[in-house]
Amino acid sequence: MSHDQTAVREVLEKARAEGRTALTAPEGKKICDAYGIATPGEGVAASAEEAARLAEEIGFPVVLKVVSPDILHKTEAGGVLVGVATAAAARAGYDQVMASALAYNPEAVIDGIQVQRMLGGGQEVIIGAVTDPTFGKVVAFGLGGVLVEVLRDVTFRITPLSGDDALGMLDDIRAAEVLRGVRGAEAVAREPLADMIQRVSALVDDFPEITEIDLNPVFADARGATAADVRVLLAAGPVVEPARLGRDEILSSMNRIFKPRSVAVIGASAEDGKIGNSVMRNLINGGYRGNIYPINPKATEILGLPAYPSITAVPGDVDVAVFAIPAKFVPAALEEAGAKGAAGAIMIPSGFAETGNVAGQQELVEIARRHGIRMLGPNIYGYYYTPENLCATFCTPYDVRGSVALTSQSGGIGMAILGFSRTTKMGVSAIVGVGNKADVDEDDLLTFFEQDDNTRCVAMHLEDLKDGRGFVEVARRVVKTKPVIVLKAGRTAMGARAASSHTGALAGDDKVYDDILRQAGVVRAPGLNEMLEYARALPLLPTPKGENVVIITAAGGSGVLLSDACVDNGLTLMDIPPDLDQAFRAYIPPFGAAGNPIDITGGEPPTTYENTIRLGMSDPRIHALILGYWHTIVTPPMVFAELAARVVGECRAAGHDKPVVVSLAGDTEVEAACEYLFDHGIVAYPYTTEKPVAVLGAKYQWARASGSMGG
Amino acid sequence: MSHDQTAVREVLEKARAEGRTALTAPEGKKICDAYGIATPGEGVAASAEEAARLAEEIGFPVVLKVVSPDILHKTEAGGVLVGVATAAAARAGYDQVMASALAYNPEAVIDGIQVQRMLGGGQEVIIGAVTDPTFGKVVAFGLGGVLVEVLRDVTFRITPLSGDDALGMLDDIRAAEVLRGVRGAEAVAREPLADMIQRVSALVDDFPEITEIDLNPVFADARGATAADVRVLLAAGPVVEPARLGRDEILSSMNRIFKPRSVAVIGASAEDGKIGNSVMRNLINGGYRGNIYPINPKATEILGLPAYPSITAVPGDVDVAVFAIPAKFVPAALEEAGAKGAAGAIMIPSGFAETGNVAGQQELVEIARRHGIRMLGPNIYGYYYTPENLCATFCTPYDVRGSVALTSQSGGIGMAILGFSRTTKMGVSAIVGVGNKADVDEDDLLTFFEQDDNTRCVAMHLEDLKDGRGFVEVARRVVKTKPVIVLKAGRTAMGARAASSHTGALAGDDKVYDDILRQAGVVRAPGLNEMLEYARALPLLPTPKGENVVIITAAGGSGVLLSDACVDNGLTLMDIPPDLDQAFRAYIPPFGAAGNPIDITGGEPPTTYENTIRLGMSDPRIHALILGYWHTIVTPPMVFAELAARVVGECRAAGHDKPVVVSLAGDTEVEAACEYLFDHGIVAYPYTTEKPVAVLGAKYQWARASGSMGG
Repeated sequence: MSHDQTAVREVLEKARAEGRTALTAPEGKKICDAYGIATPGEGVAASAEEAARLAEEIGFPVVLKVVSPDILHKTEAGGVLVGVATAAAARAGYDQVMASALAYNPEAVIDGIQVQRMLGGGQEVIIGAVTDPTFGKVVAFGLGGVLVEVLRDVTFRITPLSGDDALGMLDDIRAAEVLRGVRGAEAVAREPLADMIQRVSALVDDFPEITEIDLNPVFADARGATAADVRVLLAAGPVVEPARLGRDEILSSMNRIFKPRSVAVIGASAEDGKIGNSVMRNLINGGYRGNIYPINPKATEILGLPAYPSITAVPGDVDVAVFAIPAKFVPAALEEAGAKGAAGAIMIPSGFAETGNVAGQQELVEIARRHGIRMLGPNIYGYYYTPENLCATFCTPYDVRGSVALTSQSGGIGMAILGFSRTTKMGVSAIVGVGNKADVDEDDLLTFFEQDDNTRCVAMHLEDLKDGRGFVEVARRVVKTKPVIVLKAGRTAMGARAASSHTGALAGDDKVYDDILRQAGVVRAPGLNEMLEYARALPLLPTPKGENVVIITAAGGSGVLLSDACVDNGLTLMDIPPDLDQAFRAYIPPFGAAGNPIDITGGEPPTTYENTIRLGMSDPRIHALILGYWHTIVTPPMVFAELAARVVGECRAAGHDKPVVVSLAGDTEVEAACEYLFDHGIVAYPYTTEKPVAVLGAKYQWARASGSMGG
Repeated sequence: MSHDQTAVREVLEKARAEGRTALTAPEGKKICDAYGIATPGEGVAASAEEAARLAEEIGFPVVLKVVSPDILHKTEAGGVLVGVATAAAARAGYDQVMASALAYNPEAVIDGIQVQRMLGGGQEVIIGAVTDPTFGKVVAFGLGGVLVEVLRDVTFRITPLSGDDALGMLDDIRAAEVLRGVRGAEAVAREPLADMIQRVSALVDDFPEITEIDLNPVFADARGATAADVRVLLAAGPVVEPARLGRDEILSSMNRIFKPRSVAVIGASAEDGKIGNSVMRNLINGGYRGNIYPINPKATEILGLPAYPSITAVPGDVDVAVFAIPAKFVPAALEEAGAKGAAGAIMIPSGFAETGNVAGQQELVEIARRHGIRMLGPNIYGYYYTPENLCATFCTPYDVRGSVALTSQSGGIGMAILGFSRTTKMGVSAIVGVGNKADVDEDDLLTFFEQDDNTRCVAMHLEDLKDGRGFVEVARRVVKTKPVIVLKAGRTAMGARAASSHTGALAGDDKVYDDILRQAGVVRAPGLNEMLEYARALPLLPTPKGENVVIITAAGGSGVLLSDACVDNGLTLMDIPPDLDQAFRAYIPPFGAAGNPIDITGGEPPTTYENTIRLGMSDPRIHALILGYWHTIVTPPMVFAELAARVVGECRAAGHDKPVVVSLAGDTEVEAACEYLFDHGIVAYPYTTEKPVAVLGAKYQWARASGSMGG
């Protein structure tokens, strides 16, 4: 791709020099030419005669458009005339357009009338880019007309785009079939469209001052794509990229914060009910083995540990300072913690931005930055890191070690994480409150969890991203090895945003988050409970090696619902080859159904479950199993649970590993059976056919995004 | 609406006489004319000269179409010429179309060339009707072109349609906005379109032998609607309506079945592990107070009750016979039960249609019909009816009385219902297995539950409906007073269906079920767990009196997720009037947020919850409350639960009743709090913001459909 940056710079500088934030159509065309974006033949006429001559050169029909920096909405001004078919019409048209434009705005400086080849036929599409407040440059693609405007059938990607990203956009709209040719229309050539998307991406990346660009409509057909109209908007002021710390810099702080040799509790208290007391108790009762330094000017000893009047009085080094004092005392204490060389400030206190005290929060940020101390919060419950028995929080200790790290922007959601974890015995490496995110945010935490051997899966509740581009960058790296689950709250609260382009108007909702999180390989949980269930289950499920999912069920009714759920979750029911079908048939009653779901029928003894599960586990053509259990006297719930755990365990030991999820239909004993199965590394749920399949679907979503599925 | 049935009958009889199942275009037009469906001016020409003359009469441009009973796909045959603009072109076109048609099929009998006014402009829509195997006559409406073909943006209704039904269809497609006018187009007139839909509905209802009709395209604009092309397909053989029993006839059996004075157990057994033993135990241990007659030729006494060699030997009357014998013995025993005058045969045995033994099942149906005995099953777990302490099943007894009746087509799902009910202490009136539905189906059960004072809500799992039209009829009646929840399994397994019309092709999927169940006022549960949760919660929630939903939350994070869930579930967050806003503000900290959600902020004492909940309950402008609780030391879970139950109880006692649902975020104590709240008639869930709102959404869905919400 050859890009003439000099030509673009010239156009932009001229506009800037003239104080304009919108380019004229000929300027837009120059930019397109410079970046190899095809536009129709055209020229600018300074007289009716010249218009007629240009039209004859370009070929009829043509469109006439007024060119004026003072007229942005040309159609409204009567400054557009379409379907001009003869030289005489072009001549007359010139005068007409000129008159209308001047009638609309008598003060307008008119540079001439643009004569442009009129396009038509093929498929109308729209390609654009905007500057998203979260993600920066974002490219949009959709079908033109009603589809994009009424059904908002549009897809977004963060720049820069790979060729696959761009091609993927063509398939990612709901009406993608239209591009492949419907109702006798020929298919649209994919490469030129994808190429144009990439060129737009390159253009806005090279020139950050281009805040919005609309190619609308673009006419695409079997031969190529041509942008019939281009609209370019520029930033009024300078464009600033958010500052980002380097990975090493982040890690050197984060490793000290998550694996501290010492923790000081500023505001430690011996008095029950105080936050400074809860934090002390949780550190001690949680079994933290580093040094704990209670800081309290009014005490000499707290909960059996010597207390210090200030953090600077602590004899040894301090890695982490947990703040449990009122907001007004925080700045001075933070200065001291910084001076002491602490790596992290765990800022539990509230009373900052969330109550309107934005200046107070900014003050903390500046103190922290000055001292190079990283701050978590303010307005948080603290954090847990189980590998270090670290419960630096005012909640209650949590000790079920495991491999999932969870973070939450909201304290309430943090408490829900804690309660859910405890009741399901979810194995956790970390639970972290990020609160107001004045400093440390999800990007920092992901950077730590990426290289943390104790963490194999990350789940994050968030309402916004401070630096979406930074998040995408690190998430893309992390998902190669570990699933990242995101519950993005506030899906519907983006509200109105001033938008002066089509793309801008389309970008004003949650679809941008949705598309870009997916592009980053993140698994987006639809709700809180799903986030928690995915977090619990994903680390237990091995990565599938391919798309072939098989359902083995004793209840035909469950089989139908499990199949529905497979479709809902984008899973592929394997087309079972005849030899495998025969093999399954050997184990099931003659009126059972092989195929997929494999219906082993109700009332079968344990051996039927055992044989079919073993076959399902052993055959390498099957990549994942969904089991449907039906409670009967012949095979009671715990008998099933024990045999399933044993068979899966034996197969895993023999090297046949694949994800297994189970739906149990039965009386209340199935609940204990589910617990037993979970304890044995098998994901199992009672009274639901949807949840086990949703969890498997989430695993597949990650496996595909990570590129770890092979195939 | 004047409908000329005679004219239609004449056309249909001619086609039938000629052995045709498709009408020609002129025949289609005649039918349209007879039912007041506007079509473009047209005539049939027998010569090129006549074609030119007709075209001049009708007005240019015209379309020429071959008329031949032997050419169904006219375009394919080159038998259509569009855009004919002059008399000369019409003359030449006549010859061209004729030649093409004969080249395509030299044997074709050609009745002439149709000359038709060519329509254009306005909006292309499609109106059609098909004969659905489940629901009978079904009308479809969608936008023409890509929208309906690629995005399948189409909506269905069962006939006959009310005016509101027809108007509702215009709003029920995703791209409805197009009809209201977009991109400068004028809005389409709604009445003429709805009128045309109703006329199509009347036509297919009046003439059941019309199996499919397509008006495609229909051109609709601000003035009216004209069907440019009509396609009519007829049944090859006679059309048979399914037989339906009258309501009284159904009830006289059903009341005896659900409230029997006596139950005979055919195959009763003293031996543990036998089905006939389990049924006996469950009847006895369940506390059934009517007569229980064990039937077993080899016993004189079973579980302390005198046994009889056959049902005919029983001294008194028998209302219900429960079958617990192998399939092969069933027909003879059913004959005897019929002879004895039993009202119901509870057919537990399997080995009938589900194992391929369709003839065996048909035999049972015939025996039952001959004796007027209604049969439940075969292949079921039996049924429960708690008001009578009746557990006529081989599962385990269930005794938590309540007002929800549940049915399941699958035994596995029945077991899941039982387990879920027991673990959540769900109050149940009935649990019924319908299995193969050889006789009794959901229509019969709904008819009973409608007039059953012990049932206030019905939840049904089903994979198909034997008589969808019958179901819709009774469901429409029932939902006026009681919610009907349906879990329709097999959403994605409709498979291919031979379709020879556009409407037919579009009707081949789950959308028909979805639209028509909604039209009937049924709440469709997306999955098993949702069906169970709706069943548990809906009877506890009072009917909301309007759409104003208010969220009161202590956790801002929950508030955002609860708002998302409101949008997902079609709920309206109330726009809080200033005086009410002021009233709430009086109770919350200055940095809390009134508005909606009302964020009372974390760490507040019980009084803040109490005051805000009381205000929310008392103000009549608020119609439903969603509470977000956040676990803190200041207001622990049980303190919250008790105060919430007390305040809501007091308000209810004072006549301020409205639905209240709660999401609890916290440590595991919130689980006990949820149980307490449920016990006090408040729907509450831990660790989820979605479930409480989904349940409220289901209640609203029913309230709107039932017309009981007022407004």
